[in-house]
Amino acid sequence: MTVTAKTAARALLPNGLRDVLPPDAAFEVATVERLVSVFAANGYERVKTPLIEFEEGLLTGASRATAGQTFRVMDPITQRMMGLRADITIQVARLAASRLAKAPRPLRLTYSGQVLRVKGTQLRPERQFTQAGIELIGAGGVDAIAESVLLTVEALAQAGLPRVTVDLNCPPLVPALCRALGLSEDLAGELRKLLEQKDFTAAAALAGDAAGALSALSGTVGPAERALPVLAALDLPGEAAGHRDALLALARKVMTAAPEVDVTVDPLEHKGFEYYTGCSFALFAQGARGELGRGGEYPGDLNGTVEPCCGATLYMDAVLDGMVRPAPAPRVLVASTLARTTRRALQADGWVTVPALTAEAGAAEARRLGCGHVLDDEGRPVAV
Amino acid sequence: MTVTAKTAARALLPNGLRDVLPPDAAFEVATVERLVSVFAANGYERVKTPLIEFEEGLLTGASRATAGQTFRVMDPITQRMMGLRADITIQVARLAASRLAKAPRPLRLTYSGQVLRVKGTQLRPERQFTQAGIELIGAGGVDAIAESVLLTVEALAQAGLPRVTVDLNCPPLVPALCRALGLSEDLAGELRKLLEQKDFTAAAALAGDAAGALSALSGTVGPAERALPVLAALDLPGEAAGHRDALLALARKVMTAAPEVDVTVDPLEHKGFEYYTGCSFALFAQGARGELGRGGEYPGDLNGTVEPCCGATLYMDAVLDGMVRPAPAPRVLVASTLARTTRRALQADGWVTVPALTAEAGAAEARRLGCGHVLDDEGRPVAV
Repeated sequence: MTVTAKTAARALLPNGLRDVLPPDAAFEVATVERLVSVFAANGYERVKTPLIEFEEGLLTGASRATAGQTFRVMDPITQRMMGLRADITIQVARLAASRLAKAPRPLRLTYSGQVLRVKGTQLRPERQFTQAGIELIGAGGVDAIAESVLLTVEALAQAGLPRVTVDLNCPPLVPALCRALGLSEDLAGELRKLLEQKDFTAAAALAGDAAGALSALSGTVGPAERALPVLAALDLPGEAAGHRDALLALARKVMTAAPEVDVTVDPLEHKGFEYYTGCSFALFAQGARGELGRGGEYPGDLNGTVEPCCGATLYMDAVLDGMVRPAPAPRVLVASTLARTTRRALQADGWVTVPALTAEAGAAEARRLGCGHVLDDEGRPVAV
Repeated sequence: MTVTAKTAARALLPNGLRDVLPPDAAFEVATVERLVSVFAANGYERVKTPLIEFEEGLLTGASRATAGQTFRVMDPITQRMMGLRADITIQVARLAASRLAKAPRPLRLTYSGQVLRVKGTQLRPERQFTQAGIELIGAGGVDAIAESVLLTVEALAQAGLPRVTVDLNCPPLVPALCRALGLSEDLAGELRKLLEQKDFTAAAALAGDAAGALSALSGTVGPAERALPVLAALDLPGEAAGHRDALLALARKVMTAAPEVDVTVDPLEHKGFEYYTGCSFALFAQGARGELGRGGEYPGDLNGTVEPCCGATLYMDAVLDGMVRPAPAPRVLVASTLARTTRRALQADGWVTVPALTAEAGAAEARRLGCGHVLDDEGRPVAV
């Protein structure tokens, strides 16, 4: 193998892992910090959890879903297995239930960081993601989940995504309805699949009247404007009606507080929402590939008792997809010996000052280094 | 095991890995961003490299030193071994030699991120560190390394550490001197150890005249003001004299450009600097535990030919140790229904607005949630 071939082979990164080049790397960080600053201004305090911890901590309760997606390494000190986090929410919940167990509730926490997955999907081969999110610990119900939805939407708007769509769901609704209709879990699962495929004939053949009630629910999927009156008019049994009412109240609250946002509802949606015990939501934007993020109400565990929690996580690759990059800062080539105060004054005016190092700070060298400007005799930037 | 005991066990993190709580987590990020913004304003463009990559990429050349400190995981896709990065410099060098091979030189790159180590030391048990740094690719020699030193010092000052000490070294000097004196590598190593222990008698017994030359060098360790004239006057053989002259020139350049900085020199220092091929440096500050960071000149590999590189890495735990935390932003409890424009105006004035959610936004609730203020009838914050 030649040295060049060796270098080329060495440069190859594993599938789904990548280098982020200028200017994208800076834009990602700036956007994350913009989002977190909005969360922080609204009372969410930043925490940072480790990239690795004992696997029991990472694979408990809600996070069992990510068990198959978690890289594991042996801790040479304790000989116990550790996992590389595939999600941050579960770590923040652990922190809230341990070192922050005595902090007053509701406890508002925000975070950002990298997560790793063992495998990507065909559609999304990435295995390292940047997440940013909020957790509202010790509060549940419509007001709490509305806070999560509205603050996430507001943060996205301030970061440069003013037009998002919020899809509101209520994962426990269909299971409650199936229980009330006396359907077994297996039958309910099959029925759901048929309804997702809009195969109402097969659904009716499978479950008769029960299929009818679920079909009616599937007629309320879509823009909230149109769906809410239909959903409100449905005749649902007790527990299911309670969930429906929460979804209605949430939708109305979001539409009133953020009239600029497109709200849709989907009471049948449940994929990936298994651990939510109340309403949940997913965020979308035109031009962005897939979900920008999602959130919902989930059960926290404080000293063995359940405490309600709400949260939202943003997936930065999708968020950044939909955003317009700002113009890069103008670059001016300067002599390495330029006085510090002069250099700082240029930077304060928004210039990036690139030192010419040993070369002369002339027009040719400026162009070669991607600088559009040099300094004239009076120290003012002039285009080259 | 009771549920409570289970929760407690689950909360336990592996040794050397920790949660960072408010307000420290936010302060860390703000400080990193402050440092990187200074680097960026001076022409260093931000890149982001993955947390994991194939181990050949991570354990090549300069980074062989960190091989024993690198967690490894199997890539289920390729069945090849991957490593969790223990350092970022080597990744940036890989990037410079691959996707950025054709970018004009000198190429200035900056980065920040997490690194992981298999084991901590007794003194520093941490196994996850935040690093921030710069790499100047395709430039070497005194001017280039001076740029690394001065920019790092300037960034620290702007981030809140105005008084740092720079210790300047030249790792290849002693080996060059030993070669000129005809000492074997083993003998040179033993001699060096004795000189570090200031045992000049044993050194002379071991190596006679050769020990004298090295002892003279050890007399030039300390504040530059005093050490430079002694170092300049030393009678050194050819190659060693060249390295000494480079160290002198670097020290004078740094002292002239940043007279507020304490400069020391230590021509004997070499621990942890093995891969530097020119001058190197370490940064210290009063109140900070250990080094704030270090840097130096090292050989990059571009298509099989060596290209000189200079760089510096800051260790954020040490940097943050020495810094005074800013006063936290004042918190005001507000009704969840407060108009968005009013809330944003308060935030623009520096307030953190904490929503009272379902509770009343009164003084008692404010105190309970750590808010020093509520809004009066006219919407102005008043202390509780």
